[in-house]
Amino acid sequence: MSTKQNIPIPFSDLKRVVIIGGGFGGIKLAQKLNDKHFEVVLVDRHNYHTFQPLLYQVATAGLEPDSIAGPLRKQLEGRKHFYFRMATVEYVDPTLNHIQTDIGILDYDYLVIATGSKTNYFGNKSIMENAFPLKQIPQALDLRSHILQNFENAVIETNPSNLERHMNIVIVGGGPTGVEVAGALGELKRSVLPKDYPELDLTQMRIILVEGQDKLLAAMSDKASTKSYDYVQKFDVDVRLQCFVTDFDGEVATLSNGEIIQTYTVIWAAGVMGNVIDGLGEQAIEKSRILVDEYNLVQGYKNVFAIGDVATMKTSEFPNGHAMMAPAAMQQGELLAKNLKAIESHQPLKSFKFFDKGSMATVGRNRAVVDLPGNVSYGGLLAWLTWMFIHLVQIIGLRNRLIIFSNWVWNYFTYDRGTRLIIRRFTPKFKLKKQKISGRKEAS
Amino acid sequence: MSTKQNIPIPFSDLKRVVIIGGGFGGIKLAQKLNDKHFEVVLVDRHNYHTFQPLLYQVATAGLEPDSIAGPLRKQLEGRKHFYFRMATVEYVDPTLNHIQTDIGILDYDYLVIATGSKTNYFGNKSIMENAFPLKQIPQALDLRSHILQNFENAVIETNPSNLERHMNIVIVGGGPTGVEVAGALGELKRSVLPKDYPELDLTQMRIILVEGQDKLLAAMSDKASTKSYDYVQKFDVDVRLQCFVTDFDGEVATLSNGEIIQTYTVIWAAGVMGNVIDGLGEQAIEKSRILVDEYNLVQGYKNVFAIGDVATMKTSEFPNGHAMMAPAAMQQGELLAKNLKAIESHQPLKSFKFFDKGSMATVGRNRAVVDLPGNVSYGGLLAWLTWMFIHLVQIIGLRNRLIIFSNWVWNYFTYDRGTRLIIRRFTPKFKLKKQKISGRKEAS
Repeated sequence: MSTKQNIPIPFSDLKRVVIIGGGFGGIKLAQKLNDKHFEVVLVDRHNYHTFQPLLYQVATAGLEPDSIAGPLRKQLEGRKHFYFRMATVEYVDPTLNHIQTDIGILDYDYLVIATGSKTNYFGNKSIMENAFPLKQIPQALDLRSHILQNFENAVIETNPSNLERHMNIVIVGGGPTGVEVAGALGELKRSVLPKDYPELDLTQMRIILVEGQDKLLAAMSDKASTKSYDYVQKFDVDVRLQCFVTDFDGEVATLSNGEIIQTYTVIWAAGVMGNVIDGLGEQAIEKSRILVDEYNLVQGYKNVFAIGDVATMKTSEFPNGHAMMAPAAMQQGELLAKNLKAIESHQPLKSFKFFDKGSMATVGRNRAVVDLPGNVSYGGLLAWLTWMFIHLVQIIGLRNRLIIFSNWVWNYFTYDRGTRLIIRRFTPKFKLKKQKISGRKEAS
Repeated sequence: MSTKQNIPIPFSDLKRVVIIGGGFGGIKLAQKLNDKHFEVVLVDRHNYHTFQPLLYQVATAGLEPDSIAGPLRKQLEGRKHFYFRMATVEYVDPTLNHIQTDIGILDYDYLVIATGSKTNYFGNKSIMENAFPLKQIPQALDLRSHILQNFENAVIETNPSNLERHMNIVIVGGGPTGVEVAGALGELKRSVLPKDYPELDLTQMRIILVEGQDKLLAAMSDKASTKSYDYVQKFDVDVRLQCFVTDFDGEVATLSNGEIIQTYTVIWAAGVMGNVIDGLGEQAIEKSRILVDEYNLVQGYKNVFAIGDVATMKTSEFPNGHAMMAPAAMQQGELLAKNLKAIESHQPLKSFKFFDKGSMATVGRNRAVVDLPGNVSYGGLLAWLTWMFIHLVQIIGLRNRLIIFSNWVWNYFTYDRGTRLIIRRFTPKFKLKKQKISGRKEAS
């Protein structure tokens, strides 16, 4: 069909809510919207929801994608007047009340933009082209294959500086993702790689974590920052604070302190930006996010909403908007479901109030840091158990819970990682250069 | 490094056995070779062993690759003088006693070719280009994504013959793979797809199994053939016996009975051929397999052996060689380990004698057929339980066993499939045509 045609949706009398994005916010909203009052069309470029907090475990051979992804159709199974459409949104036309996608046009009565965030390279083109982002499942799988391929190449490498390049890994960004990747790679280095590659001197492998600010986990408590610094160092991770990666050509990473690191692998966890859609008025966009009021209504529109990472809701408590994390997205999705119903029944709307449940990060086996509301902060084994429990509870679906739990138990007692498989499609790029891989760009 | 250099292997005084291929035969041989007498170098283009009997479950969204694949380094962990090299073999040079690979040259004292089989398209180029083979994990993943993508396309399809193409699936080949794929797709059609796609009329979905001979599972007993025919029909599979697919252009499959089937999906399970390596003398090759004597020694050589699917050992009992199945490969690998030791210690060699353990195939939930030696043959629930038990016992590694078992239990009681994720790398081909996918060629 032509992309100028309407996407077929069975007819109904209900008002149609189109949700763009099946992340934490979009799913929560779709689940909570009353199916007697609304027809809901969820649009996503993937047919699955990704539990991003555990994406780093896919990249480090700890879990397969099915553990952290759930088919979107399954998660909204049994709802009436619900339609999923796998499509990439090209732009929104708020005047005509429709969105243009790669499979056609979709009209809406209410539009909810829940497109989340994407990797922010801060305009550095060489890094964008050569570093590995970690926001989507295909990216995590590519990174896993790339790291393992590098070790396969290392055992046959005769050139010393190439050997360094195969074995060194630079992680940019000392937030939760960077710290968790560093910890997971530290565990690989300590427990798995020495058994797999007895021929290699793994003391030569360097894991370097580069952070621009003067501490790790800068958004968390000082205690969490100090402890996480301590923990990653226990895994022989070299931490560079107040330092940036200024260039990476695919073989050499240049740091702002003048340091030159030979490596084929730079993992970019240094920043995200709102995944803004084209077509909104200028008044609605600020710093790559969409400005919304306390009801998540986009500035300048009456029936266009934005929730989650992509939205900035400025409040006295959060003058720059909420942190780009799952809890705010889910809470906004839940409230918006109520408010949409209130609009339809001409009831007063409720304004959003963020309920802070705390934050946490894990650094390898037995170690994590947890900040709870009210300045409660702790680390160590208890934090690690908290981290595991919370993640297991939050992931959607009993099957995922069971699979992740089994994998964790297995990995914990065997010091093993089951999924260290180099699996790739066959594109010309692979054949040209073995250590390079395709598909590293942000997915379209 | 240049591919004209030797692949670096640490020096030892031991005789070097180079094994090409980490399939059932190659692994068994590597495990059984005494590490006091031999240095062993295993070469494979993948870093994992594939448990091929369950590959169809990856293709039909039942299992993730980590369930049926084991990292080769892990499986041979702890062996002395063992080296794994991930490489594609280009040719063997028996005069110089070395093999040429894409990462360099490797000398051997003994060479064992255990390269298995590859898909045989019988020279039909349009089928080779457009049909989906099912011999490797990336192929199974591509097929999974392709099938699911077709259903995503079906819900927005307005052209009736395109709708048919999205929903119809043709399976070519009524051997165990074809029958098992048909059963698994039949289950998807019955239990999973109606819940995922309530908008589609799934009675329109046709699964067509095409077999050239006059019965399914022709290599098994008559009872197994009859029962399997009965079973696949219970899953609404249309069986065409004594019929061939003569052409498939990616949209239309033409059958030898004149039938024309609109479909984007032809699964090719109609034949395999030996994955023969270049460089052997003419005397050693017959019908795309390598001729070996009763010690698996290749015709015309003193130190080149071939085992498993790629080898033809003509005996009075098996004048055309053994069936291209795992048991013969494993038994030959095991015996060759003993014979290589015997050669070194100038002991008499033992000739190979195949020990038939029977064969089996499953057709969806609760149904399978089993043939045991001595004309014992049974079907139904007991056969299905036998099938599951044998497959769980045979797969290498406790982790794989646990994961597969958990998945099976889950799928059985929930009538669900957990891994119905469309995950692909991003190649230009995807962007051009959504229902086509890359990577369908045999891996290099």
